[in-house]
Amino acid sequence: MKQYFKVDEWNIIEEGLHPEDNRIYESVMSLGNGHMGIRGNFEESYSGNSLQGTYIAGVYYPDKTKVGWWKVGYPEYYAKVINATNFIGIDLYINGEKVDLAKTKVKDFKRILNMKHGYLLRTFTIIDSKNRETKIEVKRFLSIADKEIAAISYSVTPIGHDAKVTFIPYLDGYVSNEDSNYNEKFWVEIDKWVEKYKGYLTVKTKKLNFYVSTAMKYSVIQDDKTEVDVETIEKKKYVGNKITLIAKKDKTTTLYKYISVTTNRDYPTDKIKDKALEKVENAYNKGFEKLFHEHSKAWDKLWEESDIVIEGDTKAQQGIRFNIFQLNQTYLGDDPRLNIGPKGFTGEKYGGSTYWDTEAFCFNFYLSTRGEQVAKNLLLYRYKHLEKAKENAKKLGMKGALYPMVTMTGEECHNEWEITFEEIHRNAAISYAIFNYVRYTGDKNYLADYGFEVLVETSRYWADRVTYNPRKDKYMILGVTGPNEYENNVNNNWYTNTMASWNLEYTLKVKELLETEYPEKYNKLVNKLNLTEEELNKWKDIINKMYYPYVESLDVFEQQDGYMDKELKVVEDIPKDELPLNQNWSWDRILRSCFIKQADVIQGLYFLSDRFDIETKKRNFDFYEPRTVHESSLSPCVHSVIASEIGYKDKAYELYLRTARLDLDNINKDTDDGLHITSMAGTWMAIVEGFGGMKVKNNTLSFKPFIPDNWNKYSFKILFRGHLLKITVTKKEVIIKQEKGQNFNIRVYDENYLLPKDGKVIVKLNK
Amino acid sequence: MKQYFKVDEWNIIEEGLHPEDNRIYESVMSLGNGHMGIRGNFEESYSGNSLQGTYIAGVYYPDKTKVGWWKVGYPEYYAKVINATNFIGIDLYINGEKVDLAKTKVKDFKRILNMKHGYLLRTFTIIDSKNRETKIEVKRFLSIADKEIAAISYSVTPIGHDAKVTFIPYLDGYVSNEDSNYNEKFWVEIDKWVEKYKGYLTVKTKKLNFYVSTAMKYSVIQDDKTEVDVETIEKKKYVGNKITLIAKKDKTTTLYKYISVTTNRDYPTDKIKDKALEKVENAYNKGFEKLFHEHSKAWDKLWEESDIVIEGDTKAQQGIRFNIFQLNQTYLGDDPRLNIGPKGFTGEKYGGSTYWDTEAFCFNFYLSTRGEQVAKNLLLYRYKHLEKAKENAKKLGMKGALYPMVTMTGEECHNEWEITFEEIHRNAAISYAIFNYVRYTGDKNYLADYGFEVLVETSRYWADRVTYNPRKDKYMILGVTGPNEYENNVNNNWYTNTMASWNLEYTLKVKELLETEYPEKYNKLVNKLNLTEEELNKWKDIINKMYYPYVESLDVFEQQDGYMDKELKVVEDIPKDELPLNQNWSWDRILRSCFIKQADVIQGLYFLSDRFDIETKKRNFDFYEPRTVHESSLSPCVHSVIASEIGYKDKAYELYLRTARLDLDNINKDTDDGLHITSMAGTWMAIVEGFGGMKVKNNTLSFKPFIPDNWNKYSFKILFRGHLLKITVTKKEVIIKQEKGQNFNIRVYDENYLLPKDGKVIVKLNK
Repeated sequence: MKQYFKVDEWNIIEEGLHPEDNRIYESVMSLGNGHMGIRGNFEESYSGNSLQGTYIAGVYYPDKTKVGWWKVGYPEYYAKVINATNFIGIDLYINGEKVDLAKTKVKDFKRILNMKHGYLLRTFTIIDSKNRETKIEVKRFLSIADKEIAAISYSVTPIGHDAKVTFIPYLDGYVSNEDSNYNEKFWVEIDKWVEKYKGYLTVKTKKLNFYVSTAMKYSVIQDDKTEVDVETIEKKKYVGNKITLIAKKDKTTTLYKYISVTTNRDYPTDKIKDKALEKVENAYNKGFEKLFHEHSKAWDKLWEESDIVIEGDTKAQQGIRFNIFQLNQTYLGDDPRLNIGPKGFTGEKYGGSTYWDTEAFCFNFYLSTRGEQVAKNLLLYRYKHLEKAKENAKKLGMKGALYPMVTMTGEECHNEWEITFEEIHRNAAISYAIFNYVRYTGDKNYLADYGFEVLVETSRYWADRVTYNPRKDKYMILGVTGPNEYENNVNNNWYTNTMASWNLEYTLKVKELLETEYPEKYNKLVNKLNLTEEELNKWKDIINKMYYPYVESLDVFEQQDGYMDKELKVVEDIPKDELPLNQNWSWDRILRSCFIKQADVIQGLYFLSDRFDIETKKRNFDFYEPRTVHESSLSPCVHSVIASEIGYKDKAYELYLRTARLDLDNINKDTDDGLHITSMAGTWMAIVEGFGGMKVKNNTLSFKPFIPDNWNKYSFKILFRGHLLKITVTKKEVIIKQEKGQNFNIRVYDENYLLPKDGKVIVKLNK
Repeated sequence: MKQYFKVDEWNIIEEGLHPEDNRIYESVMSLGNGHMGIRGNFEESYSGNSLQGTYIAGVYYPDKTKVGWWKVGYPEYYAKVINATNFIGIDLYINGEKVDLAKTKVKDFKRILNMKHGYLLRTFTIIDSKNRETKIEVKRFLSIADKEIAAISYSVTPIGHDAKVTFIPYLDGYVSNEDSNYNEKFWVEIDKWVEKYKGYLTVKTKKLNFYVSTAMKYSVIQDDKTEVDVETIEKKKYVGNKITLIAKKDKTTTLYKYISVTTNRDYPTDKIKDKALEKVENAYNKGFEKLFHEHSKAWDKLWEESDIVIEGDTKAQQGIRFNIFQLNQTYLGDDPRLNIGPKGFTGEKYGGSTYWDTEAFCFNFYLSTRGEQVAKNLLLYRYKHLEKAKENAKKLGMKGALYPMVTMTGEECHNEWEITFEEIHRNAAISYAIFNYVRYTGDKNYLADYGFEVLVETSRYWADRVTYNPRKDKYMILGVTGPNEYENNVNNNWYTNTMASWNLEYTLKVKELLETEYPEKYNKLVNKLNLTEEELNKWKDIINKMYYPYVESLDVFEQQDGYMDKELKVVEDIPKDELPLNQNWSWDRILRSCFIKQADVIQGLYFLSDRFDIETKKRNFDFYEPRTVHESSLSPCVHSVIASEIGYKDKAYELYLRTARLDLDNINKDTDDGLHITSMAGTWMAIVEGFGGMKVKNNTLSFKPFIPDNWNKYSFKILFRGHLLKITVTKKEVIIKQEKGQNFNIRVYDENYLLPKDGKVIVKLNK
């Protein structure tokens, strides 16, 4: 495997410039603060291979759908994360020669992402046409202490010569998306203004009227002051300054650029310009070091809550930190209108911000590290989209609610029939997150206030979507795509049928609970929802008569009808040069093969873990995992958790590394497009739920840890109902320390232990 | 049902202008001569709803594929029939007022397509702003006697006033396709020149270098000569003349415009301009009447060979004539590089020129009315594409040859995975046409010279495409789309499995024949093809162990695995306002429903008719036809043939009318896009093979005619191995007359009859 980065516990280090892989490095080196993000682009001009990317959370564009062959029900528009005003830009000229690392001679290039304190550092030396060397050091961060602020320090040190240096710091709104369907530009200029050392630009999206103001202010600090000449530049959607000065031999000249970004998502439209100017002024007055100090302190706190420490395996340590770092850069849970985009702020690919990834893969991480309110915000996000989900079901001729596959505002924006119309299992994931939340937090009020409505409407969808088969007296679900997208339009996907039935069951269970514990609210809900006895009976009938494909000879669940008619090869039979399949095989060949993209039956065993014994899990894992190519980033994590549970420690570790280092090692050969943010939460699960064996049972936490052979020790932290626990696993012991909270009972290896306030429980490690 | 046209035996008549449905009228009023075609557009400017269309056979453009989500194996380009230089244009001004029927007051408007002699006539009276009336009569044709020539007579008669009349005859290459994927213009100007009364324009396609020269020459004839002023006009890709004259009160002024169109498909590129000028000069010298006379004589001959006469049912008569007329306008079989495009020269929709429609639906019409050489040309077309078909199979990871779903040059140009990659039954249709041709003509040489290679390579594809299922000891074909495109990615489509096995069987049968009758050629072929005993044995094994889905309880073939798990409704259960389904239901709903787009099992019963007895056909028809929505234009014809065979006369007649008048009555609500050319040959089949019960058995023709209740008489003609027969069916008798050919034996109602030279056989009609 190609090694892209130096292995280091806290840093992601590129040594030497890699023009051919630059997009991969740019993706990995992305910075974000939940409000905005930028790819690891260079400040100065770069004419080489690069994907310019500046993204602002919640600002999107309804790009006209591109489709070869239109089908009824397709959305007209595809909500797209859009590339916004480039605010990092600082063009650089040394002695009149433009610095462009694709052309300029460069040595000692390093690009370092510091995860501990969330900044990007570049150091390199350029050699001009007269062989004179100049050192450059660039550091930037997007503040997580003040999320509308970014700052850059750009230092130039001519070695052994005086140099005429020209900086052009600018704001450039003349940007586009590479994935624009019809080469449309999404932004129009509204307002701009520039003077010496200062400027701003306001642009708005052509549709939907998102207004974004970006302001900059900068200073130039020299060890040895020289005469400075400053000109202003104005172009279409562009403002800049041109600063020319003499940088003295061996002295450092630094340009500090402060940026603020405000949008009419947060302020009235007519105020965003003033707000941006006010904020950039404040930032400027604070200065780079103070801003950075506030920012790094905030990171310290985040790490304190969410870090996972691994001893004895730096690759694994770097992997998990990178995953946690990117998750915290993407979503911090403080804005309930936002969600966790599959690429976060690291690329354009995939539109929308919300997939079933949120409920199925990201939810637990935020629930256990960011707390109940953040998790509740994620649930409320879907609750607020319930009406849209009902419209979506109606559009497809169905009752109840069908949540969209991909969305920004609740409306479906994906347009492949086999996904958009058929990958309906997503509906159960929305319900599952409610169950999951209540199981973890005990917050039954949520069910009465919000959850039950979602459960009823998703149940209604399922009850309308099943086909009763009188010849077999069974309910079937025809024409679906399961989690394994390497099957399309299959009948009776075991996972979908299982989760649909579970969705109905849980709705009925919640109904009983509300009837008993919240009778008044319940009666109101019955009226509001028009819930009838007949409907409830229909649901019971479906639960009782749901059909589940099953392979008798092997005693495993059958992924879908007809799976066993396939040629039952294993992944090892595939020639290496044909992997990944999705880049080498035509779609029909993938579909009719037995090869599986991601957990499907296994996903069901993971979600409904309590229903299946270890032997069942083993049999199904043994049958399906060897046929799984893991070409979805969401695949290895779930397999790793189950592998841990069934005692396949080596497999669990192998799959952990695959999920943890997916982007660092560019395993699926698509990191150039951006990072796989949502699967990063799966990496966290692989450790906490897999290696740590953490589950919620009977209103408390239960652990069954093991430690991978080559690790000396690992630890993670968990927030649970007001308790903050630190779980440390060594070669010999499991130590569970209560850092916050009162006495309570926990379970380790199925034994009860009292965990005292400020105390710990130490249990011998099960081998 | 809305009636668009007056019912008439030989004419298609629009009375009064229908701006809202103009595109439908334009489609139906299309003219073509196998070399080029034009929609029923107006000569003068029209600012209303119109699809401008001028098409030249074999001239196409590789438009960059548009696809929402790319899949490995998709073609980069989609070969598109392109809109070429508009040569009919004649702008008209009366007393300085521009004639534009979307704005000008008009009365007594008629647009008449004369099918007998292949011309379009428009007559109308315009009323100017001073309430003065002027009569207009426009007649045009594309010569089938000289296929590069078109001519228009455009007559103006002011009623009760002298009028200043301005004609602007022009050639306009500044045209585009509405369906251009990225709004690209396909043509660039190469050369043009204009003088008084004459001009030409040469354009070429941006890619592939198709050069097209169009020349015009015209004359103006007046009852009463007036002073004529002529100016020339040149614009980008445009040449014209502006002729101003006084048209005297109640006198007719006629502009005769002669056009020639030449391409570098037929002449060296540097000669096409001269050729166009030479041809237009000749046409001009002959004059309109003489040109028209030659043209109409050629039509007389075509009708003599291919007309079907129906007495007592003008609607049915008009329908079949319209179908035969359009088929003869589209393809005359004289150019082996051409094929039968699904929209002919009547619209843009659908790229490519060749679908399985040719082999499955069009072949018999051309074989029986145009003769063996034309049919052989159609086979050779595919033979010449064999290498491309092998490349196509390879691209999808398969051995042998997979013919493309849609093509222009043998390369696949369609891009929906469920069609492109999975609708593989088309491969068997290519083989079936060979079988069909040899059965009809007895030309076994074709097998030795060309056919066997195609049969072997298609067989190789099938042998690689099947999946052996060791648990059932059966061969299966997984992940296909059958002829019924309202199912996608199904397993074991009965039709596909049946035809694949048939393909292998026929190949083995031909192998035996060649071995015996053409030993020398056979040995060469074995070497060329690298044919091994092992391979042949594998084919035999597949034939023996092919799996065919079957419904035991109903004793019918099961369309595919799992069809019986669907909710088994019938078409009558669908609310009328939800039809056609493809315009009202989302795709998933269509897929999981039991509703069928077009003949699937029934198509197999039709092709392999000899293998199935009447009872089997009846049971399957009874089960499937009520579930068939016939939303493919190719559906009713095949159903009609089988309905005839099983004695469902009313059903056969109902389905006949549906296929015959599909476009005249705009039944599928898409005639505005163009006509359904290929299904028109199915209409012919519905009469000849359905009502006439014609089959080829044991090297001769066999008939089992009946007559629909409301018909008094019908007749059709058949070319068969040097015989020209006229079959007439009355209420009482079947009369088979030999118009050309020697004595031979035919079969009527399973009895043998000797049909003497110049004689006839008369048999009592079976009731």
